[in-house]
Amino acid sequence: MKNRIITISRQFGSGGRTIGKLAAEALNIPCYDREIIEQIAEKSGFAKEYVAEHGEYSDTGGWLSNAFGDSYLLGGRSNQDLIWEAQCKTINEIADKGPCVIVGRCADYVLKDRVDCLRVYIYADLKKRVNRIVTQYGKLMDSPEKRVMEKDKRRAAYYRIYTDQKFGEAENFDVALNSGTLGIEKCADIIAQLYQHIAD
Amino acid sequence: MKNRIITISRQFGSGGRTIGKLAAEALNIPCYDREIIEQIAEKSGFAKEYVAEHGEYSDTGGWLSNAFGDSYLLGGRSNQDLIWEAQCKTINEIADKGPCVIVGRCADYVLKDRVDCLRVYIYADLKKRVNRIVTQYGKLMDSPEKRVMEKDKRRAAYYRIYTDQKFGEAENFDVALNSGTLGIEKCADIIAQLYQHIAD
Repeated sequence: MKNRIITISRQFGSGGRTIGKLAAEALNIPCYDREIIEQIAEKSGFAKEYVAEHGEYSDTGGWLSNAFGDSYLLGGRSNQDLIWEAQCKTINEIADKGPCVIVGRCADYVLKDRVDCLRVYIYADLKKRVNRIVTQYGKLMDSPEKRVMEKDKRRAAYYRIYTDQKFGEAENFDVALNSGTLGIEKCADIIAQLYQHIAD
Repeated sequence: MKNRIITISRQFGSGGRTIGKLAAEALNIPCYDREIIEQIAEKSGFAKEYVAEHGEYSDTGGWLSNAFGDSYLLGGRSNQDLIWEAQCKTINEIADKGPCVIVGRCADYVLKDRVDCLRVYIYADLKKRVNRIVTQYGKLMDSPEKRVMEKDKRRAAYYRIYTDQKFGEAENFDVALNSGTLGIEKCADIIAQLYQHIAD
């Protein structure tokens, strides 16, 4: 059987991870999220927390801090570059293993040449995402709005650096779902349906 | 019963109109597309062909031709402005009548403050859209690619002028579907499902 992969790109706080887990459960296939960080950490030698921070988020300063702020290692590659390489390798290995859901980590881009991917984007308006973060994690900071916007910005910058594309551009996906208006469960349901439709 | 409206924004050649018709048929509600042009023509006094051209497409030259190229009428408003006003009025009247599908004409923006809208965006990659245009209408021009790209550009410019938003930005929609990879029928099916889900 040909592998079938679902990649889920998501805005911070949109519930993309939960949606991925629910869709994977419905389809009885594994969902990779934090597991990818562990595998990358193992491959690259960096600590898990460091990988989590530098494998999906650019430094706030954008390209300047990327150019000058990181310690340069092998062949002029920064730590972030080394993590990116380990990340691409891990994602390809996971995809080769069999059908699964992969959440985040630019998997849509890493696997862009595979025809057996359903590429999903999950988003919601800022207010709904802030509410979700506060409900799930409690109000840990003074301005959760600011935190969500900063995460968005850094994730988009990271995506731009390594894929040379704009994060969240509809053209890079098969389906984009607004979890704020459609609801988490319905999004998971649509994804599972489309996966089965494409697998037909 | 509360009205339920589906607005379909679409890239040129993506099959958005066919998808709208199919979804409307499945839901047994009317679909407005060319009918809007006729109503606007009646309201504004402009010819149907003129409305079709100036009610969704900016002049190729963008803001410069918009500023200097049109003949100015009442209160400094161009013909395009007058058509825009008639278009907003027509779309609001149609939405007030009852459940329906409205294709194109910035209806997503015109009805943005209504909570009873399912806002859909249909797109596909350039190659698939060119194939669709050539299959449907025959190869009427030397470069159908150029024609599709020009239509995209002029539609986006029009949308930008009257809504001050970027055309095709996922955040303006509840769902965005790639008709090139998912297929026309599946897109219509998903829209009908989501409409019923939201109407619950």
